Amino acid sequence: MRMYDLILKKRNGGTLAEAEIRAMVNDYVAGKIPDYQMSAMLMAIWFKGMDDAETYALTAALAESGDQVDLSAIPGRKADKHSTGGVGDKTSLVALPLAAACGVKIAKMSGRGLGHTGGTVDKLEAIPGFRTTLSREDFFRIVNETGLALIGQSGDLAPGDKKLYALRDVTATVDSIPLIAASIMSKKIAAGSDCILLDVKTGSGAFMKTLDESILLAEKMVAIGERAGRRTAALVTDMDIPLGRKIGNALEVEEAIDTLRGDGPLDLTEVSLSLAAGMLELALDLSPAESRRRVEAALHDGHALASLKAMIAAQGGDSTVVDEPSRLPQARFSAGLDAWEDAYIDHMNAEEIGVASSLLGAGRMTLDSKIDPAAGLILLKKTGDYVRKGDAIAEFRTNDRVLLSAAMERFRGALRLSKQAPPDEPLIYAKIDRDGVTRYS
Amino acid sequence: MRMYDLILKKRNGGTLAEAEIRAMVNDYVAGKIPDYQMSAMLMAIWFKGMDDAETYALTAALAESGDQVDLSAIPGRKADKHSTGGVGDKTSLVALPLAAACGVKIAKMSGRGLGHTGGTVDKLEAIPGFRTTLSREDFFRIVNETGLALIGQSGDLAPGDKKLYALRDVTATVDSIPLIAASIMSKKIAAGSDCILLDVKTGSGAFMKTLDESILLAEKMVAIGERAGRRTAALVTDMDIPLGRKIGNALEVEEAIDTLRGDGPLDLTEVSLSLAAGMLELALDLSPAESRRRVEAALHDGHALASLKAMIAAQGGDSTVVDEPSRLPQARFSAGLDAWEDAYIDHMNAEEIGVASSLLGAGRMTLDSKIDPAAGLILLKKTGDYVRKGDAIAEFRTNDRVLLSAAMERFRGALRLSKQAPPDEPLIYAKIDRDGVTRYS
Repeated sequence: MRMYDLILKKRNGGTLAEAEIRAMVNDYVAGKIPDYQMSAMLMAIWFKGMDDAETYALTAALAESGDQVDLSAIPGRKADKHSTGGVGDKTSLVALPLAAACGVKIAKMSGRGLGHTGGTVDKLEAIPGFRTTLSREDFFRIVNETGLALIGQSGDLAPGDKKLYALRDVTATVDSIPLIAASIMSKKIAAGSDCILLDVKTGSGAFMKTLDESILLAEKMVAIGERAGRRTAALVTDMDIPLGRKIGNALEVEEAIDTLRGDGPLDLTEVSLSLAAGMLELALDLSPAESRRRVEAALHDGHALASLKAMIAAQGGDSTVVDEPSRLPQARFSAGLDAWEDAYIDHMNAEEIGVASSLLGAGRMTLDSKIDPAAGLILLKKTGDYVRKGDAIAEFRTNDRVLLSAAMERFRGALRLSKQAPPDEPLIYAKIDRDGVTRYS
Repeated sequence: MRMYDLILKKRNGGTLAEAEIRAMVNDYVAGKIPDYQMSAMLMAIWFKGMDDAETYALTAALAESGDQVDLSAIPGRKADKHSTGGVGDKTSLVALPLAAACGVKIAKMSGRGLGHTGGTVDKLEAIPGFRTTLSREDFFRIVNETGLALIGQSGDLAPGDKKLYALRDVTATVDSIPLIAASIMSKKIAAGSDCILLDVKTGSGAFMKTLDESILLAEKMVAIGERAGRRTAALVTDMDIPLGRKIGNALEVEEAIDTLRGDGPLDLTEVSLSLAAGMLELALDLSPAESRRRVEAALHDGHALASLKAMIAAQGGDSTVVDEPSRLPQARFSAGLDAWEDAYIDHMNAEEIGVASSLLGAGRMTLDSKIDPAAGLILLKKTGDYVRKGDAIAEFRTNDRVLLSAAMERFRGALRLSKQAPPDEPLIYAKIDRDGVTRYS
């Protein structure tokens, strides 16, 4: 196999054989194929795509390029959840305790955030004392004892994906559905869970801007997961509007706690319940209706909140934050933005609002930059709300006062006011599982 | 300008601005843009193409990436010729003396051959004593005195093209018409001549396999040349059948001498006369008919042969080879291939015949390998000829006897015999100049 021939084949619309893809990934990870050949291949894939067999072969080769976590020390089916990422997306902090409270075992590794969206690990680290690095033994023990543990990615998980992603990131080849599907699924497969519930975000704050693309990505990922012997399903959920009202690490933990107490925003509550129910369907073989009934019960009877509290305690965190969220880091400075006319909020560009939150210190622009856990913003009004001139639309929080004006300006640019009310948008657009696609809108 | 943004723009079908292309080339040559970004860009260009303005901007930036030869020390219009390369293509050795004998000034730099086609410099070096490296002063002096000098590429001519071509060569992005056009024309423009006559080969032994592609490439190159203020024209000529009967460095010099004496094969004579006439049209502002009349006269009255002889002498070569071609290097071993049945020669794959000649020692596979100037082959029969079983089809020559069998086997595989005569193919398909395309077939 010569890499040149594989580039030529893909460029000309050919199909790469499994053995060719495997050799290519192995040689690339081993440094035998230079970046400049791989980037030409990635661009050819961007144009010509990959069929299901190619995408699966790429996923498997990437998953096998490093450690593959063995979760067999935890009895029963283990479930994982993945979100393609969105602004204010704290669903893991709500849905995982919900599912764990219903008996699902969750041994989850999460990434850190880069760019305008924070990662779950960043959010948890806002809790004083919370440790996201655990020994494998402690990790398994906590899952066995509490049903749920959540740590940062450790070890050498899918290093081929890491190397390939870094190259895609600088060569304009990120937004390719087969490459995205292989990247996400290689890490999920290597992470060892038996069941995988995917939350594919769609809309202005999501990586996938259109519903059709989002459904296509979900279908590809479900097909890969099932082919790898993992029960896999996906929900396509809205990210045209930020989820919930709070954006920023400690703020999102606070909102997750409120939600598990039954006092959360409706959109976050609904999406979290749906995701948790999806995990029950996969991991416990329950019907959708029964799954839904159980996760709603776990929300209302406090079991889910107790599950979050137990995990925080088990991972060294100050679990009293669950009862007193004011113990979470608080910002020294805040400012408000008021409506400048009487109007409906017609549109909030979720991605731009994420950038505004980042500018306050809540996100990191490089892997080395430090996050301000207390920084972020609170949406007092959201898309569809009617505001009168002078009404507070949002509140901004930061520990670095000089960041306020740029963030507020960015935020204001993300808003569109109108005399007419915008149409309602659904929260959940579609469900994709091995039986196919069910559209809800 | 961020290279990432330029890749994205091209990938999405956008048009790069002149300043963007210039900055990209300059930064790439300066090592500020890594190969892996440039190869992604090249693949995006392969898919999306470049319009005329983009192609010109790329050409100009590459031409200006290194030395630009100043030929003003030679009075009058200087003409250059370029062939896209073919098997047995010794037209430079015939057409340039023809044009020089008619008063065209030719200060030409030629490349060495790589792969199955020998370069003009390699052919001239088969002449004992011939020097292809001259000081700039000697180079200009010889052109002023004899009308013609021919040297190897010296100095730092279009280093950006060299770097880009090396990358294209390993990333399956060579066969892109705008990239080919920019590569060729950047070197021609940097080489400083006022007039450029292009010989675009088409057919099985050429880089461009179809006539339409060849014409398109010719149009692009003529447009670039004219835009750069150089009088430029192109002929699209046949390379489905090797040109002439002799392939190999000394053998081709011998055949060129025979042709200038009026005893050459008809195809080589005709193509060389047409190319030389094209140079006269551009450099002397003569009509096609008058140009043709003059080059025919120079052939028949011996002036063109004298011009070749004068150039050889001026460049230190043994000019008696013109009168006694047997003084050229002779191979120690030879063998013949006979027809194995009574039939027409239906097809000779020119590229494969070039490979067979290479296998005898006439070509180099890497830039370091040494050429055997005496090696090569003689086509005693060509496409369209009728052979009887036992008739000699070709003669093979080499100084390394062990090379014979592989070369002969390769040659035999390049032949197709048939009971029916193949249709005649034209020698010259089209002429392209600033007035447009004239098709002859």
